[in-house]
Order: sequence, then structure tokens, then C-alpha cells
Amino acid sequence: MTIYDWHTGPYPARVRIALAEKGLQSRLRFVSVDLRKGEHKTEAFRAKNYSGTLPVLELDDGTLIAECTAITEYVDALDGTPVLTGRTPREKGVIHMMSRRAELEVLDALSLYFHHATPGLGPHVEVYQNPEWGLYQRDKALRGMRYFDGVLRRQSFVAGEAFSMADIALIGGMIFAGLLRVPVPEECEALNAWYARMQERPSVRNWRTMSA
Amino acid sequence: MTIYDWHTGPYPARVRIALAEKGLQSRLRFVSVDLRKGEHKTEAFRAKNYSGTLPVLELDDGTLIAECTAITEYVDALDGTPVLTGRTPREKGVIHMMSRRAELEVLDALSLYFHHATPGLGPHVEVYQNPEWGLYQRDKALRGMRYFDGVLRRQSFVAGEAFSMADIALIGGMIFAGLLRVPVPEECEALNAWYARMQERPSVRNWRTMSA
Repeated sequence: MTIYDWHTGPYPARVRIALAEKGLQSRLRFVSVDLRKGEHKTEAFRAKNYSGTLPVLELDDGTLIAECTAITEYVDALDGTPVLTGRTPREKGVIHMMSRRAELEVLDALSLYFHHATPGLGPHVEVYQNPEWGLYQRDKALRGMRYFDGVLRRQSFVAGEAFSMADIALIGGMIFAGLLRVPVPEECEALNAWYARMQERPSVRNWRTMSA
Repeated sequence: MTIYDWHTGPYPARVRIALAEKGLQSRLRFVSVDLRKGEHKTEAFRAKNYSGTLPVLELDDGTLIAECTAITEYVDALDGTPVLTGRTPREKGVIHMMSRRAELEVLDALSLYFHHATPGLGPHVEVYQNPEWGLYQRDKALRGMRYFDGVLRRQSFVAGEAFSMADIALIGGMIFAGLLRVPVPEECEALNAWYARMQERPSVRNWRTMSA
């Protein structure tokens, strides 16, 4: 299998963490798509993923799977533990909900802030920016962090009492916050404690060097 | 099980269609949350779904599941045919990708157009609007329709040769386009032909009256 990604990207991080959790690193070939050069927005890359985003997984039969949740579903269904997307109907539902919520309220919001209210990937890549929207999304992300702090005061992981895809999605958000130097509100003690625990996992600690 | 939804909403439509496909209508109680009054943005409703969106499924044990994909995962894992989210790892990956792509490129784009560049649900609900962003998303949705037209020239359904959650997501987009009178580009013959076929399915034809 081939992963098209970029070694500092918060979305690529999500898939790298999922792959490492499933112990699949050795079956992968990594191909760098240089975000700073806008290689993900070229015609050639858009033929692989119409949305022009990273990462993309290419199977040995040529099937292309984009979108972190979709790649995680694929990888998780292959085999092995931990199960990242749930076993029972209820687990599946709650994990998918919390994963999407972590995207909507934190990770995707920070991505919109980055691409619209900061220089982002540079003027040759950010051909349209809407700074007001970007700043609005930054505020949304900070509210989202407070929401997840509340969740993590009640339970050990984002979707309950087990590590899942939903934790990985929120880790993606925390990685993005770190890159952007968006400070996590100080009062978010449970969120910060959870993130410290997450970084004890080898998959989370080592994602940047996974392709090396 | 209880569904909190609204009888004309494109997102509620997705879950209603999924429930009808799985033959689960008789197990459901429908509770209307009046979008026009902004009932989905109240403190009380946000306690059920932090993101303040419809629909939400409440299980008999009190578990709340928001987000269409998450609810569909729950429902699909319960039992029965058709399988909406895939059987094999590859099917699951491709269906999740195409479903998310239908959201990103068509359905969610039209929703942003509605809420930001039209009166939307009215001034008491649309407390912040960014019209430029809304219009940008409308153009994105039209490009997205052309992309899916290309997909449907090559295959019978959005994610391949079987009906799936990805079709339902794009149906949501087509429903929203109809509500907003955003015309589907005339040259999108395959997209229009697919949508005509979809409307032959009882689940798609009858979603508006499901709770009656």
C-alpha cells in the first residue's frame, strides 16, 4: 500500500497514528506530496483525490481512498487490535459522532483558520482567503476545546472508556493548535491531561518520523 | 428509538432514507425540532448535540448519536439489508470516502450557501453570516455536481455498483439544491439520470412523510 502524505500535516498524522496503532507500518510505502509547493492542488494529484487534500491511501489494486475517516475504516476493517472504529452498533455510532465532532469543532475549524486568516501555505497555494471566516473558526475551535475538556472530565477517552478514532481526530486538532501556536485555554485541564496521556502512546509520539 | 429531526431538512432526509432502507421505521418515534424557530440552537438542544444540528438519534438507553454518518453506521450495524456502509474493508473505505466527498463538495457547500448567502432560517437564527463565503461555497457545489456527474458516467452508484450511504449523502445534496432552487448544470446528464433512478426507491420518494 502507498500513502501520499506530508510529514508535518495534522491530517496525515491521523492516518499515521491509525496505521501505527494497527501495526501496519511495514506494509506501507510513503510518498511525499509537498504541501508548501501546492502539489496537492495540481491536476495530477486531483486525479487521485478530487478534493485536493492529504492523505490518500492507494491499495495494491490501484484503489484510491481519501479522507481520514475512510482510510481509518479501511485499515480498521483489515484486522488486528485495537479496534479504532467500534465493535458494537452503539460503539460505532458514538465513535463516528465524536470523531466528526472533533473535526467540525476543533480540527477543521483550525484548518480553516490556518488557510484563511494566516499566510497558510503561501500566496501561490492560498488563492482565495476569507480572513473573517478564518478568525470566526479560530474562536469556534477554542469553544470546541472547552467542550472536549468537559467531555474528558467525565470519561477517559473522547468516545468513552477506550481509545478510538475519535481520540485520533482530536489529537489531529491538538497537533494543529501546536503548529499554529493557538494556545489551549489554561482552564482545559482535563483536555491537557488527556493529551499528555495520548503522547505516551508510541503511535502518537513517533508519527512525524514514521516514513523515515 | 427517538429521532429528533425536521420534516423538510436535507440532513434529516439522509437518516430517514437510511432508516427506511433498513426497514426500521416502525421502531422509531419522531420528535420535531423546529429549525425555523431555531430550536436546534437552544441550550436545551445543545445538551443533546453540542454542534446544534439535526438529526439526532436517541437510543432507548439514553445514548445520543448525532451526525448522519454516525447514525447510519449505528443503524447499519444493527442488522438487515441493504448494507449501506460496506462489507469488505475496501467497500467500507470507498463508501466512507465518497460519502464524505458528497458532503464536502455538494451537501455541506450548499448548506453554507444557504446559511450565509441567503436569508437562511431568518435573522434570529442566522446570527452570523458571511455572504462571500456562502457564494464561494455555492460555486464549489456546482463544481462538485460536475465531478459527481463524471463519476456517474463511469458507474451506476456513487461508490461503485451498489446503493450505499454515499448515494444517500449525494441525495441530500440534490434535495438541498432543489429547496434552494440551485439549478443542476444541464450538462450533468448522468447525475440527473442517477437522481431520477434514486427517486424510484420508496425510501427516497417518501422521506418527507415518514413521521406521519
